[in-house]
Amino acid sequence: MPTVSLSDPIRPPSSAVLAAARAHLAALAKPLGALGELEELAAWVSSCQGVCPARPLDRVRAVVLAGDHGVTHYGVSAYPREVTPAMVRAFVAGNAGVSVLARQHGVSLQVYDVAVDDELAGVPAAVTAYKVRRSSEPIQLRDALSADEVHWALRAGERIANDQISAGADLLIMGDMGIGNTTPAAALIAASFGCRAAEITGRGTGVDDAALQHKIALIDTALARVGGRASDPVQRLAALGSADLAAGVGFLVTAARSGVPVLLDGLVSVAEAVVAEDLAPGTIAWCAAGHRSTEPAQQLALDKLGLRPVLDLGLRLGEGSGAVAAVPLLRSAVLLMREMALLADLAPPGA
Amino acid sequence: MPTVSLSDPIRPPSSAVLAAARAHLAALAKPLGALGELEELAAWVSSCQGVCPARPLDRVRAVVLAGDHGVTHYGVSAYPREVTPAMVRAFVAGNAGVSVLARQHGVSLQVYDVAVDDELAGVPAAVTAYKVRRSSEPIQLRDALSADEVHWALRAGERIANDQISAGADLLIMGDMGIGNTTPAAALIAASFGCRAAEITGRGTGVDDAALQHKIALIDTALARVGGRASDPVQRLAALGSADLAAGVGFLVTAARSGVPVLLDGLVSVAEAVVAEDLAPGTIAWCAAGHRSTEPAQQLALDKLGLRPVLDLGLRLGEGSGAVAAVPLLRSAVLLMREMALLADLAPPGA
Repeated sequence: MPTVSLSDPIRPPSSAVLAAARAHLAALAKPLGALGELEELAAWVSSCQGVCPARPLDRVRAVVLAGDHGVTHYGVSAYPREVTPAMVRAFVAGNAGVSVLARQHGVSLQVYDVAVDDELAGVPAAVTAYKVRRSSEPIQLRDALSADEVHWALRAGERIANDQISAGADLLIMGDMGIGNTTPAAALIAASFGCRAAEITGRGTGVDDAALQHKIALIDTALARVGGRASDPVQRLAALGSADLAAGVGFLVTAARSGVPVLLDGLVSVAEAVVAEDLAPGTIAWCAAGHRSTEPAQQLALDKLGLRPVLDLGLRLGEGSGAVAAVPLLRSAVLLMREMALLADLAPPGA
Repeated sequence: MPTVSLSDPIRPPSSAVLAAARAHLAALAKPLGALGELEELAAWVSSCQGVCPARPLDRVRAVVLAGDHGVTHYGVSAYPREVTPAMVRAFVAGNAGVSVLARQHGVSLQVYDVAVDDELAGVPAAVTAYKVRRSSEPIQLRDALSADEVHWALRAGERIANDQISAGADLLIMGDMGIGNTTPAAALIAASFGCRAAEITGRGTGVDDAALQHKIALIDTALARVGGRASDPVQRLAALGSADLAAGVGFLVTAARSGVPVLLDGLVSVAEAVVAEDLAPGTIAWCAAGHRSTEPAQQLALDKLGLRPVLDLGLRLGEGSGAVAAVPLLRSAVLLMREMALLADLAPPGA
């Protein structure tokens, strides 16, 4: 039984604690503002926790939501869809990129098959417990999901978030795996902000110029097919999204409603955040951005959401990797706030 | 007896291993280049170690070279010089900003008084073992150091580096502490690249507009006083530098000659790297940049040196803090290289 429903209101992080945290940071033994963006991160974590100084971010839990996409039958990706189930097995084996980073930082990592186009025989039952369907539909031809499927996927994300929160989470991380997933993610962002595909479409895993032009045309076709119906966030997810993206939206809204901060990763998680904010205003106040990816749609959406990413290293692996790589910096922000001397405590001259 | 002399030649990191490392990274289970700048960092560490994949960066050792500056009697800083010895005591107590970060990341941290204008009574003997003098002279009026003092300071830096390397170091970090030290650091960079002070002078710990104009005028006065004599790196250090900056140069050259990679921090360490490269060409090949500070001189020098910083978070604390905060990302780069699956190893579809 989930403790939080998608229909509950979202309370904001504490503005009183935010102010107290900024005052505390200003009193540390350093020039005013000398910790740069680490200061705003520390204050944000404090305000989410409702306590100053913030508690250490010991329990960080990352999830990877995996799914396939009908568009991969139409030449939008540099890799075949069979890579998606193979990568799910790599997460289970612990040798995907994000697996290495999660181990380094003591971050719990769980992959969920939301819509992989494979039975994934033999993987642990927890991986497939919230599967919604095999793949989603090609968005340039028809809706990705039925209305029922959107709701099942949102509910799957809600349950995944509740499982993670019940296990104890100071911070959640939203990761993705799915060949082709930058196409629906870019389409959702274009529809959300009224952009043309050419303004925001990137190379994903690394398609060439011709495939990029094809991807742009496919996204514009999808946007034209859907038209004004995309103004509603649930219909937008059905028409242009996918089951894994919808589950991500449910995950983010649930985390925010539960008062657990989330670190976003690349394009896919940021697209989910954009839709989540439309669906449940106030969600974004519980999100920070782990890194700036190479995808133009992610950069545009971060700007629109007012999020400044922690890292800017040209990462484009997905999997939650950029966010997990940024975890030590959030932890640094909190530890500096907790452990630095105060200016007032510095030894007087000659002491 | 130091094992390496400042007059020994500097061999470059292995180009053969660099190529092998890039090939190894290209074979990992990810799109080509998807780890962005982490791939170049991993390849650089590999080439420095001469082994592929690189060994983990377990033993990271940071030093903070502390000193005072005659210019602080002339209104270039927002804080009084008495803060320098107080902060040395904070490093010893373990509650400076970089102390917190070093503890978080298991980085060894040692502060050295190279030229603090205080006796530092009661601090451990190791802190003052390489002290060159009390403060350095005001560079707008006269040379910061005598020729002998420059050589003593370079030798102090050499000995400090050798001590750290003897203790076992996979990576060294160069930090600084000294009220007023952005003034000689900016002067060294301006002289090295032929800039006027207005192009590169920043606010240091946070001076106001009037003090910034005064700082610019003071640096221009110093540059005019020294003239063409600054083209020689040792004379540049004597005329425009300080004992702590000269020790930093000796430290960097010694690390490079010993084949130990160094992560640079903010303006002061980057100014030292600029002079070190003039003094001992090839030093920079052993250096990476930990972070982009808010000081324009640091940004200009990084561009000139061809170094792209790992972090860009608006930090301006000094102390080595930006570099120590970046350590987890260098470690991530190496671990990803070592532990990720190869594309060729991914489970075949349906396996």
